[in-house]
Amino acid sequence: MFDERLAQKASDNLKKVREKKPLIHNITNYVVMNYTANALLACGASPVMAHAVEEVEEMVSLAGALVLNIGTLSPEWVEAMLRAGKKANALKVPIVLDPVGSGATRLRTESATRLARELSVQVVRGNASEVLSLAKKGARTKGVDSVHSVEEAEDAAIALAKDLSTTLAITGKVDLITDGERILKVHNGHEMMRMVTGTGCTATVMIGAFLAVDPDPLEATTTALAYFGLAGEKAASRTKTPGTYQISLLDALYSIDEKELRKGAKIEVVK
Amino acid sequence: MFDERLAQKASDNLKKVREKKPLIHNITNYVVMNYTANALLACGASPVMAHAVEEVEEMVSLAGALVLNIGTLSPEWVEAMLRAGKKANALKVPIVLDPVGSGATRLRTESATRLARELSVQVVRGNASEVLSLAKKGARTKGVDSVHSVEEAEDAAIALAKDLSTTLAITGKVDLITDGERILKVHNGHEMMRMVTGTGCTATVMIGAFLAVDPDPLEATTTALAYFGLAGEKAASRTKTPGTYQISLLDALYSIDEKELRKGAKIEVVK
Amino acid sequence: MFDERLAQKASDNLKKVREKKPLIHNITNYVVMNYTANALLACGASPVMAHAVEEVEEMVSLAGALVLNIGTLSPEWVEAMLRAGKKANALKVPIVLDPVGSGATRLRTESATRLARELSVQVVRGNASEVLSLAKKGARTKGVDSVHSVEEAEDAAIALAKDLSTTLAITGKVDLITDGERILKVHNGHEMMRMVTGTGCTATVMIGAFLAVDPDPLEATTTALAYFGLAGEKAASRTKTPGTYQISLLDALYSIDEKELRKGAKIEVVK
Repeated sequence: MFDERLAQKASDNLKKVREKKPLIHNITNYVVMNYTANALLACGASPVMAHAVEEVEEMVSLAGALVLNIGTLSPEWVEAMLRAGKKANALKVPIVLDPVGSGATRLRTESATRLARELSVQVVRGNASEVLSLAKKGARTKGVDSVHSVEEAEDAAIALAKDLSTTLAITGKVDLITDGERILKVHNGHEMMRMVTGTGCTATVMIGAFLAVDPDPLEATTTALAYFGLAGEKAASRTKTPGTYQISLLDALYSIDEKELRKGAKIEVVK
Repeated sequence: MFDERLAQKASDNLKKVREKKPLIHNITNYVVMNYTANALLACGASPVMAHAVEEVEEMVSLAGALVLNIGTLSPEWVEAMLRAGKKANALKVPIVLDPVGSGATRLRTESATRLARELSVQVVRGNASEVLSLAKKGARTKGVDSVHSVEEAEDAAIALAKDLSTTLAITGKVDLITDGERILKVHNGHEMMRMVTGTGCTATVMIGAFLAVDPDPLEATTTALAYFGLAGEKAASRTKTPGTYQISLLDALYSIDEKELRKGAKIEVVK
Repeated sequence: MFDERLAQKASDNLKKVREKKPLIHNITNYVVMNYTANALLACGASPVMAHAVEEVEEMVSLAGALVLNIGTLSPEWVEAMLRAGKKANALKVPIVLDPVGSGATRLRTESATRLARELSVQVVRGNASEVLSLAKKGARTKGVDSVHSVEEAEDAAIALAKDLSTTLAITGKVDLITDGERILKVHNGHEMMRMVTGTGCTATVMIGAFLAVDPDPLEATTTALAYFGLAGEKAASRTKTPGTYQISLLDALYSIDEKELRKGAKIEVVK
């Protein structure tokens, strides 16, 4: 059932991250900054957080990938994201967008939509509601309001990926990744991950790290999610309480070796 | 000595939080955002942090309670707190205010006082100096300057609770909770809690979670503080060093079950 | 090889911090706020984070030291740092500056340089690139571009310390501390410290705590770095994975006693 080539590629990508230690530029939310910075270090990458409009263009010029996350957005930060994103596009630095809470408030939906449509974003990762809130008004009504699971989101995601010309990753019990043509699923992960704040945001930065070493957004995303999900499983084998779990997850990101990932990656090629 | 009805209510409230998973909207300080989000998840609630004036009214409309915390305030954030608070009042969403550092600088004292007086705040939680700094100038001089312990704060607190028409929680070795009429005390807690930053702020968000399921602010506050204090005791039985303690406290919030809370809650009815 | 008088002074300074519990006012970056606050508590000091221009002067008036850290700077925050710094200078409150990322973007280099030159800063701590980026244009070209290790940085550091009339601490495998006359080195520390975000920033706040009890900036800095490095070693004896290490480092800061520090401090007097 699981794809061996992609399991091998997950392992190869992890190796590349650890060798190249790509700088990942994050414009992200206050809640997760410390945790995602530590997660990036644990996987082998090098994090930097910088949000001032005066410096984001310079900073992204040094980066292997740009992570945009609207978890605690304000209009000024969205401007900085747009400015960094345009520079990233010009320099071919890949961008991953995490539309945290899009669909919940107008500011979030509009900001996420603007980022997804004004920039060339390589990957968007969120839960089903967040990702599908980026669809155009008509599609959105049909999409979000009726969608409650990753499974139901499949058709809507394919249409939206085509419309946005991007790779979408809808994470949940099973992760769905599509670029509008191909469809992959990741069966790694553990329910304890939902008990820690910012695990979604951390999945996003892992995608950033893998994007910095793999030019194929669909496969970079899928292999990153397999790696992160496997870390979630490994941490859950150590503890079932959330404080300790938060810490064990960082430990697992660090200690998973390439062979372990090749054996443990559960990637399904749907199409 | 300890009240059995309130111990049972603490247990019932915890059960309700875990069943209803209320969304708690936080406008809070940068230092504790990650920790209080994780504490809310650990107790069974669902946290969201959102501070942009453009979205706080929409966000609080989705929430079961609003937490306002001025720990790293700036004037813009106070405006957002007022805007969110007014919407919360209109929608009968309960508010808990944490006047971090009120009394230490004019900005903090004035901001906390403005929030406490312009909004209908259901609960204010802080240490004795912070809470009593909200009293009017004359009372304050008499109050704060002469007050050094929870015990000495008692009379001042009763007068202030009446004046503000709110429930006050002064936390310390023993917690004092009063709405100006009734007086309750919580004897749970552990001195290790002072070794971790943001435990006061975490007590406040626990009150937020309990307020979302219990319409009686005095009893919601008291039962939340008994639960949080018991978690502090449980964590201290595992470790006596602060790094590990910070983590164990989250584990304890998660693992305390309803029976354990009913047996362990130490709530005294003073009046 | 290691200096006994300074080892004893490290121990004495730690004792003083624990006795006096100095308030350390931090204007710092979002990423590390929680961690450095907990590190200050663990060592015995009392942290406060406050950045609003409306209150920084009042807050620093209550403090034993001021920590300025530009890790996630914006122009408004730099203004607050300058305002707090000028008040600190007027009141003789010592200042430690952490020029995070100076050299990487113009905003960072200019802001750090402005802080170092417009204020009387007692200590600057960073890695070699960050610290030497503060040198004047000509010196900088010669300095930074050719400098890759603490060792090579030595001459440049001495010249810069004289120019800025401050103590410089360049931390790395071995820490170099100089006021332009004397040169000290600290041989404590562990490579695991680089696997946790914000350990540099935490070294800086430890310097802040020691500055609050020791009027000699060079020796306060050196003894603080020996203490922090020893904590890094102690944590590494417990764990070699970064999540757990982050926590163990806080535990070690708390549990190191004065005798342990006197025995473990590895301070070399070079000149």
